[in-house]
Amino acid sequence: MSKIKKGDRVPLYYQLMDIIINDINCGKYKENDKLPSERELCEIYDISRATVRQTILELEKEGYIYKQHGKGTFVSGERFKQDLLKFYSFTEEMKKLGKTPSTKVLDFEITRLNERTAKKMNMNEGDKIYKFTRLRLADNKPMIVETSHIPYNRFVGITREDLEREAMYDIFTKRYNAIFTKAEESFRPVLTRENEAALLQNAINSPSMMTERITFEGNNIIEYTISIARGDKFKYRVVLEK
Amino acid sequence: MSKIKKGDRVPLYYQLMDIIINDINCGKYKENDKLPSERELCEIYDISRATVRQTILELEKEGYIYKQHGKGTFVSGERFKQDLLKFYSFTEEMKKLGKTPSTKVLDFEITRLNERTAKKMNMNEGDKIYKFTRLRLADNKPMIVETSHIPYNRFVGITREDLEREAMYDIFTKRYNAIFTKAEESFRPVLTRENEAALLQNAINSPSMMTERITFEGNNIIEYTISIARGDKFKYRVVLEK
Repeated sequence: MSKIKKGDRVPLYYQLMDIIINDINCGKYKENDKLPSERELCEIYDISRATVRQTILELEKEGYIYKQHGKGTFVSGERFKQDLLKFYSFTEEMKKLGKTPSTKVLDFEITRLNERTAKKMNMNEGDKIYKFTRLRLADNKPMIVETSHIPYNRFVGITREDLEREAMYDIFTKRYNAIFTKAEESFRPVLTRENEAALLQNAINSPSMMTERITFEGNNIIEYTISIARGDKFKYRVVLEK
Repeated sequence: MSKIKKGDRVPLYYQLMDIIINDINCGKYKENDKLPSERELCEIYDISRATVRQTILELEKEGYIYKQHGKGTFVSGERFKQDLLKFYSFTEEMKKLGKTPSTKVLDFEITRLNERTAKKMNMNEGDKIYKFTRLRLADNKPMIVETSHIPYNRFVGITREDLEREAMYDIFTKRYNAIFTKAEESFRPVLTRENEAALLQNAINSPSMMTERITFEGNNIIEYTISIARGDKFKYRVVLEK
């Protein structure tokens, strides 16, 4: 077993972090395994409760572990790495990672654009759109809530059942011969609200990523989607090369 | 004045959001202006307190406004858009936006790499590095806290004063002829901790963006930086073209 070196200039909580991260990386602790309690960690490593508490806080913050109220501390699953330099399909990404993607359509309506969303989509207030909210799951665990706005006239005939059954981008390209020419995504960190937390099965005010995505076909916007993704499940990456 | 249409199928809170956002966009309310109180908004628009409260919540969540405990609700500044497809320099970006960037060096030490950071930097445990934490400000308002790890041997002679005075990348390229060949950034949403909140002058557990940045010079990593940016001040954008 790795030991804490008390004379070392590396702070004790940091040494304990390294030990636990190493235990996670080498598979001693697996996804959703329960960690020893604070008291147990104090005894195992002969260090103070305050040190253990700081270790746990830092590990939680770095996303290695999560707490369940009254139950203890558990090992998080690895974050899905989402590469930002390509057209992103939840369905395709999850399949690549060996996860089974699924989708629940929570709302589906044909409605008219309000002023604000019309501006975003470069369309007119009152134009007909599909508006739907989907919960995206991986191995039946909720990951993202997405609300999409899609111009009705470009995609006449889409139903709620289509979206339950098939990936949206597959419907677009296969049935409507859509060609994606450009996408813009913007990201910002937000806190989950009550309804989002309920859907994503995490606590209210958990850190999450809000993404706005606008997809173009030539000069026309064919998708405007706002999504909220669990902050403990994703990591967004961009590589810049000269 | 815009009116709320009570018979409309657009929810009342959403109509009020549109009105206030419009008032912000057209300059009726400016950065840091105080909004009318909940009670005043109820009277002005003849709607219920619950509706006004939902409007305020949504506007806060979307970053248009911020609350100050006991003082009221204020208009946020516009978010800085950070484009992810280029080498990012805080100093350069702020100058482009007409803001005056400044930097406070909070810690500066020459130390040795621990195991975990050594792995990230593709170096050996015990290798000599600079480790420093900088607070980045725009017009004297704190925006980002950054902790950087820089290989000592590649940049012998950097001082704390250098970093106060000059942009780090300028020091790298002008004094050490560094050539950046690649950078990798990964992002995730986190909550500010007590010390970060104090530095960034926002509330504990505010949504923020944690970025890890690794910069390469050929095969060598010359920078590993972890930063925490205020979530209400930045928006990260990526454009994908086919």
